Amino acid sequence: MTATPSPLPVPPRLATPTGPRGADQPWWNTQLGSAMPFSRYERSGTRLPHLLTDRTWPSKSLARAPLWASVDLRDGNQALRDPMDIRRKKAMFDLLVRMGFKDIEVGYPSASHADFSFVRTLIEQDLVPDDVTMSVFTPARPELIDRTFEAIDGADRAVVHLCHATACLWREVVFAMTAGEVEEMAVRAARHVARCADATKGTRLRFQYSPETFNVTEPEFVLRLSNTVAALWDASPDRPVTLNLPTTVETDSPNVFADQVEWMHRNLDNRRSVILSVHPHNDRGTAVASAELAIMAGAERIEGTLFGNGERTGNVCLATLALNLFSQGVDPQLDFSDIDGIRRTVEFANQLPVPPRHPYVGDLVHTAFSGTHQDAIAKGLAAIGRRAAEAGTPAATVPWNVPYLPIDPKDVGRTYESVVRVNSQSGKGGVAHVLNTAYGLDLPRAMRVELGRRVQRAADHGGGELTSRALHALFAEEYLEFDRPRLVLKEFRTTPGAVGVTLDALVVLANGEERRLTAGGADAATAFAAALTGIGITVQRPELTEHPLPDTVGTRFAAYARVTVDGTVYHGVGIADDAERARLTAVASAVNRAHG
Amino acid sequence: MTATPSPLPVPPRLATPTGPRGADQPWWNTQLGSAMPFSRYERSGTRLPHLLTDRTWPSKSLARAPLWASVDLRDGNQALRDPMDIRRKKAMFDLLVRMGFKDIEVGYPSASHADFSFVRTLIEQDLVPDDVTMSVFTPARPELIDRTFEAIDGADRAVVHLCHATACLWREVVFAMTAGEVEEMAVRAARHVARCADATKGTRLRFQYSPETFNVTEPEFVLRLSNTVAALWDASPDRPVTLNLPTTVETDSPNVFADQVEWMHRNLDNRRSVILSVHPHNDRGTAVASAELAIMAGAERIEGTLFGNGERTGNVCLATLALNLFSQGVDPQLDFSDIDGIRRTVEFANQLPVPPRHPYVGDLVHTAFSGTHQDAIAKGLAAIGRRAAEAGTPAATVPWNVPYLPIDPKDVGRTYESVVRVNSQSGKGGVAHVLNTAYGLDLPRAMRVELGRRVQRAADHGGGELTSRALHALFAEEYLEFDRPRLVLKEFRTTPGAVGVTLDALVVLANGEERRLTAGGADAATAFAAALTGIGITVQRPELTEHPLPDTVGTRFAAYARVTVDGTVYHGVGIADDAERARLTAVASAVNRAHG
Repeated sequence: MTATPSPLPVPPRLATPTGPRGADQPWWNTQLGSAMPFSRYERSGTRLPHLLTDRTWPSKSLARAPLWASVDLRDGNQALRDPMDIRRKKAMFDLLVRMGFKDIEVGYPSASHADFSFVRTLIEQDLVPDDVTMSVFTPARPELIDRTFEAIDGADRAVVHLCHATACLWREVVFAMTAGEVEEMAVRAARHVARCADATKGTRLRFQYSPETFNVTEPEFVLRLSNTVAALWDASPDRPVTLNLPTTVETDSPNVFADQVEWMHRNLDNRRSVILSVHPHNDRGTAVASAELAIMAGAERIEGTLFGNGERTGNVCLATLALNLFSQGVDPQLDFSDIDGIRRTVEFANQLPVPPRHPYVGDLVHTAFSGTHQDAIAKGLAAIGRRAAEAGTPAATVPWNVPYLPIDPKDVGRTYESVVRVNSQSGKGGVAHVLNTAYGLDLPRAMRVELGRRVQRAADHGGGELTSRALHALFAEEYLEFDRPRLVLKEFRTTPGAVGVTLDALVVLANGEERRLTAGGADAATAFAAALTGIGITVQRPELTEHPLPDTVGTRFAAYARVTVDGTVYHGVGIADDAERARLTAVASAVNRAHG
Repeated sequence: MTATPSPLPVPPRLATPTGPRGADQPWWNTQLGSAMPFSRYERSGTRLPHLLTDRTWPSKSLARAPLWASVDLRDGNQALRDPMDIRRKKAMFDLLVRMGFKDIEVGYPSASHADFSFVRTLIEQDLVPDDVTMSVFTPARPELIDRTFEAIDGADRAVVHLCHATACLWREVVFAMTAGEVEEMAVRAARHVARCADATKGTRLRFQYSPETFNVTEPEFVLRLSNTVAALWDASPDRPVTLNLPTTVETDSPNVFADQVEWMHRNLDNRRSVILSVHPHNDRGTAVASAELAIMAGAERIEGTLFGNGERTGNVCLATLALNLFSQGVDPQLDFSDIDGIRRTVEFANQLPVPPRHPYVGDLVHTAFSGTHQDAIAKGLAAIGRRAAEAGTPAATVPWNVPYLPIDPKDVGRTYESVVRVNSQSGKGGVAHVLNTAYGLDLPRAMRVELGRRVQRAADHGGGELTSRALHALFAEEYLEFDRPRLVLKEFRTTPGAVGVTLDALVVLANGEERRLTAGGADAATAFAAALTGIGITVQRPELTEHPLPDTVGTRFAAYARVTVDGTVYHGVGIADDAERARLTAVASAVNRAHG
């Protein structure tokens, strides 16, 4: 029944120190030892030597999604300051089902009345869809196994998940048992589960076994226990046993874990009768990596939680794992198209906030404040837009490739509004981008520089972030609103002439005086400039650009003027329902700025 | 000058799908495809095929700390909604120095007035200790390089850090340049830096080069650029160039990054004249793993921030990396002995909270709510205490090995108070542990079960967490305080008799009546029981345990009684200044509970 494990490992090879360090360090490296009591801890690699020298996982890639198993309602719940009541549990369960989870651990029914009655509610109110299997957790004690089977009585299908400690530290400190006694306990418990299952009618049952803490248990011991338990449960390819390897406490870098998983993968009896599962925790901050390398090493199923809730540093985050696959062109097999909605439900259920820098979902993770990044993102989005236009397809279907944005925020239900945000670290590009996405304005380059400086001063002075509304207010203050304007265009009319147009305009001057002006020119703006000379304002070389504004904005045209007033170049902006009025207003804006 | 790179990679090997999936899936696996638009993204491995087949990093361990470089004041700062003002910058800088950082990037002086003037302040107020080198960031534009050298004028020592984009996406979308043009730009900028350095007197200068985004740039191109720039800067073992490889956006699993780093490590010219550095971001949630595997692959220096602040999902967290080393017996070379103080300063500087599950520092990461975990932790701590007592050494020096706690919370300045916290998921062990650590009470096992049930009811009813104070209130309500006590012991006196003692006691009954009782017995408690029979209270077989209370508690003895009253077993507690009074009060407590 037991496989022949690979020959046991040679002593670990420690990395050769590279680069000059220590007492004779050079002037550019004065890093010295700390006073931290590191000698209390075992040196990496002395605990579990590398199991494999011919590992294959480093050459593998992630080509498909694993089986996802949510433990939000069990491991996640037991780590909450304020555990879920039935309303929060239902909200979580419904969310998991909607997202596409098919394998959901719903509780530890022998531990508390709350868990027991939630399982009963799911069964009695028939809340588990036909394609979802619930799983219930039980320790290896006969009376608790009995209680677990009581809890699932009447379920259409269920997984009974038997878990007990196997690691040396637990054997010695917690159980005071030898390895042999732990093995006897496992056998007794597995047999008890099998007997209870035989006595259960009308429920399709499968079994799961978790030897914990897998990563600090002697590999041969875990292997022997796993093979023994799977055999006792008649594991077969049609009805495989889930063998779940919990990193209950993460202790080593992910490559060590991957070696351990590959070693199990290679040495298990009847490999096709076993679903090899991992359950990483995040004590070292490497749970996501451990899960990914474990898949490369042969694991087929991952237990974790949404956004990584769980004991201490949490369980591995299934959202990060699934969206990592997504970002590399692999179907995540879970629906994250409304990640903010998912987050709201998870925050309600857990009563814990999702951090602002949590991958894919945090408030700040699709955001750039830095000017360089903003500029690159704006160019990247524009390039996507061009490619979509050229291909005549919606932008959302064009292959994604934008600097600083690993995925299109729209694919998880975010808008671009939050992508570029402006503070003192931002540049002209970011300001222009925000005014463009929020107000449809497409400022010429020189004006971006000018406005960028104005925004920089405001940000330096005020600190903090400038919202799109605040940016628009600065823009309007600068180009549209004047306390005492030298010139306001009231009415105008153009008449086609021999070589251009004749303009008749009514303007109001700073002193309130109304003046009618008339002049001819190649176009209305040139004529306007000529007319202004008549009232003592020397305006030369008006250059104009303009664009229609999006429907949503209400007015229809924005025009940007660059004119020379008294020898100096000024920019002005006009926004109006017709293009001609926008142009002339832009010239007036430049004049007002020159005299402001 | 360019190295001969390894022959270029064969097409990637995708992981072989394992286990039955897809259309013909069995009843226990109904996981189907999602509607997520994954085809927009490039499949893993098609972008950058595996570079190495003979990689050596998977057999390495982490044997010593890398050179730590903080970019909190540059990359971290530019990602803040509200960038640091000078007060917050100074607080951060001082903290970094106190913790032992020797390599601190202090800003991007050509980008903003705020950054420029902070660098000037550091120099003019002589705030940089002799063993610390400040680093300043500059893009590859001559006028910005000039401004950078202006900023460091008069510094004792400094690193000038030249960074520009090299990746194809940036070349095409942001610069509209060919690879050749980017190379020319790099050479021009590096020469300009060298010229400025030649003109700088009195400052010991070193140089750093960052080709970004390293991980999505063609490896041969990065290698050629790096060798070229290092040569232009006369890199030598005495004055090495720092070659920093930024994962500006994390795109692949950490093993892919490790291959890239090992490939660079092997192929670089004049390897000992280069400090190989990495700068991981956390878009995939695997920055810590990427940094660790990169060290195994040959990197000697890590750029990151405290608790992982930085653009989007953040930079790699240096606290996690350093304490991961610490937890494996390696000197972290940074001082984390007051992690909560560090956190307060970081939160002040960044104005961003550190999440409750952040490794080593989060509010919840040394905490167990689950009964099983609490029980194991209590046993583990007790075992450490025993070992310390046996060895006659303080517990803080005994090798650490406690279930569910990767490090001793005291080593980072936390107490055990927060380790075990009680809610509806907790068991008797947790309750007993909290009463023991907070109040010095060491309840007998049967009483733990009894009180555990009472606490469970309260937790189920109230939801949420029960503080040590709330637990003590429940304990007192149950054993110490009685609304209408049947019996209150007022005074007593014992006289040695022939075979035991004679007890004279004054008690007050429920109706307020005072009664003097006298009886003899083997000890005072037995005599008290006998005396009570005289007033119609049948108390049999008193069994008592007691222990002194810690000095801090104020009173001196706790006694626990187990007695049979009218055929039923009851427990009682007495707390008093002398042991005898504590014992008799415990008997009275049991009597009062029997009649309660």
